[in-house]
Amino acid sequence: MTDTLRPDGRTANQLRPVTIERGWSDQAEGSALISCGRTRVLCTASFTNGVPRWMMGQGKGWVTAEYAMLPRSTNDRMARESIKGKVGGRTHEISRLIGRSLRAVVDMKALGENTLVIDCDVLQADGGTRTAAITGAYVALVDAIEWGRTHGFIAKKATPLIDSVAAVSVGIVDGEPRLDLEYREDSRAETDMNVVVTGRGLFVEVQGTAEGAPFDRNELNNLLDLALAGAVDLTEFQRAALANTAESESR
Amino acid sequence: MTDTLRPDGRTANQLRPVTIERGWSDQAEGSALISCGRTRVLCTASFTNGVPRWMMGQGKGWVTAEYAMLPRSTNDRMARESIKGKVGGRTHEISRLIGRSLRAVVDMKALGENTLVIDCDVLQADGGTRTAAITGAYVALVDAIEWGRTHGFIAKKATPLIDSVAAVSVGIVDGEPRLDLEYREDSRAETDMNVVVTGRGLFVEVQGTAEGAPFDRNELNNLLDLALAGAVDLTEFQRAALANTAESESR
Amino acid sequence: MTDTLRPDGRTANQLRPVTIERGWSDQAEGSALISCGRTRVLCTASFTNGVPRWMMGQGKGWVTAEYAMLPRSTNDRMARESIKGKVGGRTHEISRLIGRSLRAVVDMKALGENTLVIDCDVLQADGGTRTAAITGAYVALVDAIEWGRTHGFIAKKATPLIDSVAAVSVGIVDGEPRLDLEYREDSRAETDMNVVVTGRGLFVEVQGTAEGAPFDRNELNNLLDLALAGAVDLTEFQRAALANTAESESR
Amino acid sequence: MTDTLRPDGRTANQLRPVTIERGWSDQAEGSALISCGRTRVLCTASFTNGVPRWMMGQGKGWVTAEYAMLPRSTNDRMARESIKGKVGGRTHEISRLIGRSLRAVVDMKALGENTLVIDCDVLQADGGTRTAAITGAYVALVDAIEWGRTHGFIAKKATPLIDSVAAVSVGIVDGEPRLDLEYREDSRAETDMNVVVTGRGLFVEVQGTAEGAPFDRNELNNLLDLALAGAVDLTEFQRAALANTAESESR
Amino acid sequence: MTDTLRPDGRTANQLRPVTIERGWSDQAEGSALISCGRTRVLCTASFTNGVPRWMMGQGKGWVTAEYAMLPRSTNDRMARESIKGKVGGRTHEISRLIGRSLRAVVDMKALGENTLVIDCDVLQADGGTRTAAITGAYVALVDAIEWGRTHGFIAKKATPLIDSVAAVSVGIVDGEPRLDLEYREDSRAETDMNVVVTGRGLFVEVQGTAEGAPFDRNELNNLLDLALAGAVDLTEFQRAALANTAESESR
Amino acid sequence: MTDTLRPDGRTANQLRPVTIERGWSDQAEGSALISCGRTRVLCTASFTNGVPRWMMGQGKGWVTAEYAMLPRSTNDRMARESIKGKVGGRTHEISRLIGRSLRAVVDMKALGENTLVIDCDVLQADGGTRTAAITGAYVALVDAIEWGRTHGFIAKKATPLIDSVAAVSVGIVDGEPRLDLEYREDSRAETDMNVVVTGRGLFVEVQGTAEGAPFDRNELNNLLDLALAGAVDLTEFQRAALANTAESESR
Repeated sequence: MTDTLRPDGRTANQLRPVTIERGWSDQAEGSALISCGRTRVLCTASFTNGVPRWMMGQGKGWVTAEYAMLPRSTNDRMARESIKGKVGGRTHEISRLIGRSLRAVVDMKALGENTLVIDCDVLQADGGTRTAAITGAYVALVDAIEWGRTHGFIAKKATPLIDSVAAVSVGIVDGEPRLDLEYREDSRAETDMNVVVTGRGLFVEVQGTAEGAPFDRNELNNLLDLALAGAVDLTEFQRAALANTAESESR
Repeated sequence: MTDTLRPDGRTANQLRPVTIERGWSDQAEGSALISCGRTRVLCTASFTNGVPRWMMGQGKGWVTAEYAMLPRSTNDRMARESIKGKVGGRTHEISRLIGRSLRAVVDMKALGENTLVIDCDVLQADGGTRTAAITGAYVALVDAIEWGRTHGFIAKKATPLIDSVAAVSVGIVDGEPRLDLEYREDSRAETDMNVVVTGRGLFVEVQGTAEGAPFDRNELNNLLDLALAGAVDLTEFQRAALANTAESESR
Repeated sequence: MTDTLRPDGRTANQLRPVTIERGWSDQAEGSALISCGRTRVLCTASFTNGVPRWMMGQGKGWVTAEYAMLPRSTNDRMARESIKGKVGGRTHEISRLIGRSLRAVVDMKALGENTLVIDCDVLQADGGTRTAAITGAYVALVDAIEWGRTHGFIAKKATPLIDSVAAVSVGIVDGEPRLDLEYREDSRAETDMNVVVTGRGLFVEVQGTAEGAPFDRNELNNLLDLALAGAVDLTEFQRAALANTAESESR
Repeated sequence: MTDTLRPDGRTANQLRPVTIERGWSDQAEGSALISCGRTRVLCTASFTNGVPRWMMGQGKGWVTAEYAMLPRSTNDRMARESIKGKVGGRTHEISRLIGRSLRAVVDMKALGENTLVIDCDVLQADGGTRTAAITGAYVALVDAIEWGRTHGFIAKKATPLIDSVAAVSVGIVDGEPRLDLEYREDSRAETDMNVVVTGRGLFVEVQGTAEGAPFDRNELNNLLDLALAGAVDLTEFQRAALANTAESESR
Repeated sequence: MTDTLRPDGRTANQLRPVTIERGWSDQAEGSALISCGRTRVLCTASFTNGVPRWMMGQGKGWVTAEYAMLPRSTNDRMARESIKGKVGGRTHEISRLIGRSLRAVVDMKALGENTLVIDCDVLQADGGTRTAAITGAYVALVDAIEWGRTHGFIAKKATPLIDSVAAVSVGIVDGEPRLDLEYREDSRAETDMNVVVTGRGLFVEVQGTAEGAPFDRNELNNLLDLALAGAVDLTEFQRAALANTAESESR
Repeated sequence: MTDTLRPDGRTANQLRPVTIERGWSDQAEGSALISCGRTRVLCTASFTNGVPRWMMGQGKGWVTAEYAMLPRSTNDRMARESIKGKVGGRTHEISRLIGRSLRAVVDMKALGENTLVIDCDVLQADGGTRTAAITGAYVALVDAIEWGRTHGFIAKKATPLIDSVAAVSVGIVDGEPRLDLEYREDSRAETDMNVVVTGRGLFVEVQGTAEGAPFDRNELNNLLDLALAGAVDLTEFQRAALANTAESESR
């Protein structure tokens, strides 16, 4: 690691300040407002007894996610996708990523025929919105599953959650591998990688993209080292937010 | 006025608790997170120098608004309009109402060829979202116009704002005219009215609808009395939020 | 009232010539071609036994409306909404207004599990199309309900219609409150109001909008006076059209 | 020809009663409300100086058409294409047919850089709506072209119309070739053919479709004989409607 | 017939080289890659046991078709209809034509409650894509029906195919009637006609369009002569392709 | 590596048979029909002089890609995205991946203000369609760039291609890391990874997803080893296809 100063003065392997406001919503079965630096994502988990028709009768549940950005979450206002009449490729791609990441830690049999929809709405964007969404969505998911158990839709002894999951971005900026890029860094990174990691330290997703020059095996390894270390910290923030069990009775 | 108790214990002519967090967004030229009871709306104002092509060369500005609800702002999750691929009638109608209400207090000549887009995103809904949106949008608008002046897009001596504007809902519930209905009241009101009033006490919009039985002239007058009194209070909340001028330099 | 001459020579409190051609369509269960001056709207009422799935089993009926303009009903040709691929905000808003206005005079229990869809297609537009649509739609509705009774879908002794309904526009033009604005007046009115009134003189909808300067309580009262008087005349035209009962057997 | 009675008592080679109300619309540059039996189509022609961008600078004009049916023009109400969000295949196909048919009799060079859009809206449908639309559209087109000449957009001596055009349906019902099918006949025809013919008796379009059994060369010839004779009569109705030149000054 | 040389040296009544690669697809129940000169269309037939809900219980099957062009099948790249978000008029029209043409030779009762969807995707376009699609689709259809019989969905003794069907384009170019136009001819033809003919020589569709000057009865007859002769040859190519029965077991 | 037999008898580190038919299309500036086992993708490259408006004047070119599947490329027929009216998330995601992969080896300055659109249409799908598309698209891209040079749109001495690019899928099936999964393997893989590699052996994209159990660092390394070895072979197939320079003059 070199001594290059990052825009906000962090070291290369340091996360931005993280806060997780669990139970932010009065309406949802689970919710969390996560902030990673200036990036703020509202995650709500909606619990429904029953599954889509094509899944009925298999004794398994379903978890899906939808990601969106408020039009003025970014520095320049974006047109609303509802007004454009279609969901863009990037939005689709991120929604699918969040859904897969959450499903990787859920035992669908233990969940039973229940559906969880996690909405991740970016209120303010400063890089790393998809990874913040995954980290926050996990907290909302835990509370919504607990709600399902309390209300008798999930068996008392079932353990639908087999692990926790968090995500972080890493990238190579000015030749230096860095953790948790903010927007100013992200927009000029040579390589950008989003890594989704479970509480046990296993990979759920590794998505590395050469934005500028292609990268070699050594760079890839350095980025993975950074990401695994960052994920350990994020997992700790999740645990802290979930420690106060009283809040899960938000509804 | 009778002594009927309202669901949250208010009297018939009492507003819910109101808070306006001005400058909530780091990105927008003006912003306000308004809460009216459990209803919470994030209002951001985006300032753009220039106007749409069809308005160019007339020396006049433009103000428009877009309203939307997060899918889980309500008690039951709604499908996203971006995914349905079209904006619903109610959304359109409210967006148009907010835009008209704001334009009523803006002198487009004084604004010059500048465009303001006000986004009102409902984070949590408990009745009165459109009126809360108008009240919050005005605060965001003031800051965005001030931003335009500070950045040299609006003449120093111009006064684009000719009045302030706020809005409130009133309705007849169990035969009693009431101010500022929460969702439980709104859903069983016989008559529902949204009233948009300027700081000087003039009407910008009066939209009364018989949901159950039609209403007579006397009931209409009682509702207007309640609304005008409520608007005075809301105007005061707006003034208080705008008093701290330092905050307007949010960007 | 001042003596200002209106574009077509009417006094401020005078309706344009009204004609209602009941039973214009050979296909619909009820229909009326209404003309208010040069504004012409074809209203057809379609009767279907049964209700949408989400209403089944409640013993109640449903009434809904759809409003549209032919592309060359206006002075300049408008693009078709079918070709644009979406229904505009104004169209949605008016369709919803017409539906609510009609439902206000229908006893859904007495209607039974039957659905009425009222289509209001503007063949020629010269201001006041939404109010003409409501006034004409009521006539079509009466005949379609009668058709339902004749064909055994509505009980002989049931009275689904609890009142009649008509609508008129009023506005302030050159400082003068006027009844039933034609397009040339409507386009430069300071305040524009659509009022929906039952045969008994009660309000179903009051929608007043300041297009230019906001309006005060006194102006509002003057406009309501004009509207209530105009509605009495329109109700009379409806009665006259419905008097000739032989026509209701158009199908 | 056999003596089989048709549903309305016509002989096999007889048209339904035809009326053409020229200048029905106060707004359009040309218009005609055509009735062929119970089929009624409102045709309006909109004249615009100038052509679409991709045609500019070639000194040629453009003629296009749009066909649509009101939702309750038919016996059972159809959903609006604007609400379905897309134009159906049948609608597209007929719009294209009408446009081609009209263009076949227009000299685009003589028309100059002007655009004519012909809207054909079916107010009531009882078979033969596309052919009635073509026959009526021609009348509207003539008046709109004349309007363009009067207003100086078309050269005084130019002759943009090189022929007239009319259309009629023919078909084989119960083994018998018949002219101008009404809906009851059309829906059970073995073969259905739409023929577009100029005033000089030349073919613009021949569209024959075997709905039931395929047809042989002899049947095809019989159908063409019927169609050519019917077109002569329709051309005469057009001439009569256009004879009263005073009406063309409708705007 | 004159001696005018055609772009590729054919005589006026000569088809382009035809090849039919039956069983091109490993996945579909029936398939054929047809080439007519440089025009290449991949036709696949998908067999499904059962019919759409609105047809259930009638003991009849259904055959439908969808036509599309790859974006770079043409000389200039076209935008994808999936990205434009709607299917164009021409695409709809051709899909409907192919479906009708195939249904004309299928006995729906004998097919039983089974559905066949024929996809015709133009890989390369050089005129005559819709007619090549019909000719190739028939071959795919035969194999898919045979697949249905082999798999027990169609009765052993049923004969769903009552005839074969092929199609060809004809047109008048430089005053000369010609068979099977390639794109260079098609784009400047005065009259263009698509003719769909059964193996027994009966007409299923005759669609003649004057692109330039209208045509007379004599020209029409010459075009039909050419088309009927060409159809005989195409029918022979279909027979040859279907002769090798081993290939029908492609799946 | 274990001795587990794969469905088609390959060893774990063996590619399926690869063929690349360069210049398959007569219309496109570059084209290749690539087969990887039963997966067949038609790749066409369209060259346009000029760039989209938002890129003009920067002296840089643009490369983009669109991926789509024919409805019956798969074992069960899929609905067309053009008919559904929107492009699905998976399609978007893959189109973006192909575009990024190609751009990684193009020097946009050297390309000059020219646009290349690469269409990858899956004619038959048996796993690995996106990676086959990238490998084939590169071949089409080379020829289209050469076409641009021959036709004077790219400077003689410019070298827009700075490397070659190919892609391959790897995955863990039954606990064994395997190269180039066919559909039967892909659908039950525990982990699935797509790797895009340049001719020099650098990574452009690494996209690993745990479909079943999350994977550890060791498994990740084994998969990358397999992918890099496979990419070397694919690069060789590309070189062989491009060796026959005569073919590049396909148009």
